[in-house]
Amino acid sequence: MRLKRFMEAVREESFDAYLVYGSADIYYLTSSTGGGILLIADGESTLYTPRLNYPMAEEQVKICEVQPYKGERELMELLQKRLRDARNIGYNTLPLSTYRKLRERLGEAELREASELLWRMRRVKDEEELKLMRRAGELADIGMEAAREALKPGVREHEVAAEIAHAMMREGAEGLAFQPIIASGPRSAYPHGGVTDRRIRWGELVVVDIGAIYREYKSDITRTFIIGEASERQREIYSVVLEAHLKAMEAMKPGIEARRIDGIAREIISNAGYGDYFIHSLGHGVGLEVHEPPRLSEEGEDILEAGNVVTDEPGIYIPGYGGVRIEDTVHITSSGVERLTKFEKELDAVIL
Amino acid sequence: MRLKRFMEAVREESFDAYLVYGSADIYYLTSSTGGGILLIADGESTLYTPRLNYPMAEEQVKICEVQPYKGERELMELLQKRLRDARNIGYNTLPLSTYRKLRERLGEAELREASELLWRMRRVKDEEELKLMRRAGELADIGMEAAREALKPGVREHEVAAEIAHAMMREGAEGLAFQPIIASGPRSAYPHGGVTDRRIRWGELVVVDIGAIYREYKSDITRTFIIGEASERQREIYSVVLEAHLKAMEAMKPGIEARRIDGIAREIISNAGYGDYFIHSLGHGVGLEVHEPPRLSEEGEDILEAGNVVTDEPGIYIPGYGGVRIEDTVHITSSGVERLTKFEKELDAVIL
Repeated sequence: MRLKRFMEAVREESFDAYLVYGSADIYYLTSSTGGGILLIADGESTLYTPRLNYPMAEEQVKICEVQPYKGERELMELLQKRLRDARNIGYNTLPLSTYRKLRERLGEAELREASELLWRMRRVKDEEELKLMRRAGELADIGMEAAREALKPGVREHEVAAEIAHAMMREGAEGLAFQPIIASGPRSAYPHGGVTDRRIRWGELVVVDIGAIYREYKSDITRTFIIGEASERQREIYSVVLEAHLKAMEAMKPGIEARRIDGIAREIISNAGYGDYFIHSLGHGVGLEVHEPPRLSEEGEDILEAGNVVTDEPGIYIPGYGGVRIEDTVHITSSGVERLTKFEKELDAVIL
Repeated sequence: MRLKRFMEAVREESFDAYLVYGSADIYYLTSSTGGGILLIADGESTLYTPRLNYPMAEEQVKICEVQPYKGERELMELLQKRLRDARNIGYNTLPLSTYRKLRERLGEAELREASELLWRMRRVKDEEELKLMRRAGELADIGMEAAREALKPGVREHEVAAEIAHAMMREGAEGLAFQPIIASGPRSAYPHGGVTDRRIRWGELVVVDIGAIYREYKSDITRTFIIGEASERQREIYSVVLEAHLKAMEAMKPGIEARRIDGIAREIISNAGYGDYFIHSLGHGVGLEVHEPPRLSEEGEDILEAGNVVTDEPGIYIPGYGGVRIEDTVHITSSGVERLTKFEKELDAVIL
């Protein structure tokens, strides 16, 4: 049981108490989708939840006490009372204003960030989580197929997004994992280009970056389509990004430094002369959040482990011209990777 | 010009410098959708933006300098250098970890929360904003019409959400303002019930709470539908909520305390015997964010002003039975209100 394991970890680190804030961590430990603050102290756990979510949390939470609070002031009073004797308090994250209010009420007690305690667990997905993430991946593939069918000269970016959202949610997604990106033409050079009412034209690159939510778990996939015929330059850029994407994925396995995976993709893109145009890191963990540890970046210290779920998403972005990104969400297994998103990515499959 | 007005306010408050964090505030002041930190110091403004969003920000921002940074460490170094001589620094909000890193680098300078400086401006929507918010409201109405058409016995909650997302985005929404709520049957008693794969049945209440994004602006609407025939109890609860909703809206005008508006709705619901089942505040501001000042709650200190855009959303939630919420987004005008969401709400219109 996750909460029990976590309480064990809190004790081992010699915390008198620990505060868990944030809907993903609270869901992970308690199955409540109602947020609030989970307090671990004196060998017990209590979920303090906003009163409007109390009836739902009572139904969802089987493994600890649930108490409602009306406003932040009441929550602070409840916590202060419970933490009276605590000297060494850990937390994962807090809004700055909450931290400062708590800090004032806790006198000389130490209040120390220790989010790694939770990430150590959340980083390694269990079988139940992987089952849900496989479905989240399938739903993203369904969304991408809807994009492929919708993309043609004259269609607007938001119209493509509409078909994607419809397909994913009709098949079971509870929502969109993030605001979709449908970045066409010169806009494809913006990695976070969003969606506009721009009409897509013949011959253009279109970066489609989407994800689904399934039972709170997220997926993340990007494909770049070429409308009509691909130019020599488009083919070349696409092939470089695809090679970087594939070679990085091939190298993923437990025990390898995440920054080495980033390095493999970066070297391929640099050797092809596009190093200055790969302006972000290679990937990130995915789970209850779209962006979580481990980070696959030049500076990151993470080492891949079996059970990690991460993205592999190199890109080349040429200002004024356009860009290409190819991304899958993959599960690191004992021997390599399992792809959770499986939409085709060969050049021929993305020329529409 | 908003940035100029804001810089004026920063100077009037005698800050040597001010840090703006958060994509909504940065968009409001600079038109950049790429986030980062906007620094105001020495009568100048600089937007520090993550390098992956630099090409986009350069295109979007006409009114101040834009500088890319690669990681948080580089950002901290840039800020430390620029803030060397600042003694009195304001900020709107910061992630706790960023705050602590900055705090360490700023020696004896004072670092003080002063978000009200920005909210004073953002709370009062200008004509350009209202134009976009009217369209965001229309798109929410279009989504609600799609819900009405999709709702029938046997359909699943996520299938209804799919039709809503499709309709709003096809007509121009860039995305969903928040994860939709389609809470049917006993789940309608959960104000934040989300979406599941539950099949909707004859005779049930279904709370539908949705919003659209249009050019970064949000809308927010809730209707409660009754599938088939309405029972006496459902009719009674619906009528009480509708009366509370209408009477609260009637009382809205510049100069009135927001908590008095909450009180009007609360009194109607209490007098009908349902006071214990109205478990949240009456409403909140809407704009670039779905939840922003002013708050319409029992404890809030806000006073309504012309140009505010707020929700009016009383509800009654009976555990194990079901719930009703009725919500519109409205603009406070000099003489009363302008509804931005206009979907029908008479009892007869929501019995399907």
